[in-house]
Amino acid sequence: MKRFLVVGHRASTTGDFSINDLPGGAGRMDVLCRCINSCFFLSHDLRRDVECYLILKGEPNPPKTVLIRGSEIRYLNPDERSAGSLLKKALALPCGEIFRESTKGVYVRKGGLDRILSEYQFTILDENGANLREMDTVPKNLILSDHMNFTEEEEELLKDLKRISVGPKILHADHTITVILNEMDRR
Amino acid sequence: MKRFLVVGHRASTTGDFSINDLPGGAGRMDVLCRCINSCFFLSHDLRRDVECYLILKGEPNPPKTVLIRGSEIRYLNPDERSAGSLLKKALALPCGEIFRESTKGVYVRKGGLDRILSEYQFTILDENGANLREMDTVPKNLILSDHMNFTEEEEELLKDLKRISVGPKILHADHTITVILNEMDRR
Repeated sequence: MKRFLVVGHRASTTGDFSINDLPGGAGRMDVLCRCINSCFFLSHDLRRDVECYLILKGEPNPPKTVLIRGSEIRYLNPDERSAGSLLKKALALPCGEIFRESTKGVYVRKGGLDRILSEYQFTILDENGANLREMDTVPKNLILSDHMNFTEEEEELLKDLKRISVGPKILHADHTITVILNEMDRR
Repeated sequence: MKRFLVVGHRASTTGDFSINDLPGGAGRMDVLCRCINSCFFLSHDLRRDVECYLILKGEPNPPKTVLIRGSEIRYLNPDERSAGSLLKKALALPCGEIFRESTKGVYVRKGGLDRILSEYQFTILDENGANLREMDTVPKNLILSDHMNFTEEEEELLKDLKRISVGPKILHADHTITVILNEMDRR
């Protein structure tokens, strides 16, 4: 299994945002929607061996974690609104400590970065990390940030993890996922 | 200059579509919007050395060509609606044979694939093409199709052009652009 985790620093933790305003009212939810697209879409196919974890840290109920499983997902189209609509349904669902399914293949629970770091071993995408192409094996579990840098508190949690870089220019999170999956495809 | 040309087989050639329905009423305009995003966005920067050409072949006035210049573009945000809004303005503008500017860095004219092929030498993205990573130099002008294959008529126009592939799995056009730009960044 390949796992991509994206931290949405201002992403809404309620379902009452408008899918016509994903960048604004939903706290740059558009970034997370594009990451979902990058995780799963192939031409006329889906990447069934990918799980996408989104840590949402915006108001009013942070943090929440949304999990999307490529092996189970339905009703997902490539456009941002489609992913946004599934996230809206997930975030509208009352949730507790255990993942609860909102629509087929989409799950939500309370909890943030510290919890998921205790569950899986992750590698961080970082412009100063080791060159992806020069690694003997591509790490399977990867953490990215949205349009903002990791906070000091997050960096403290992440400080002992390995770091890799996808190239000389700093890319958006969704583009980074695309480049990594292409590297995995080639191995 | 790097040039990406994407053929939108059903993409609207009028500005009267809704940016709330880019996949449906606008003829999979969402695909073209994501290609614009992939062409230009870096983290907190834009790729000024890229030009994006979109050939729109949907009703009611096909074909039209939209050109977006990274060196000049303004008012472009990463979300699909932002690119969709600029395309809507371009397509609402009456246009002739010469590129006419609709908003800063966005131009529109009549004409399709045959015309642009007479202006630049292009290479085609094709799953059976030569491996991108094994090429001595990455071609600078590249043609992609949207969610549909090239038509027989288009293939006839393209039949003498070189073909390259980005990897073992067939990717969406926007993901393909991201992978190619990453390869260019690394050279």
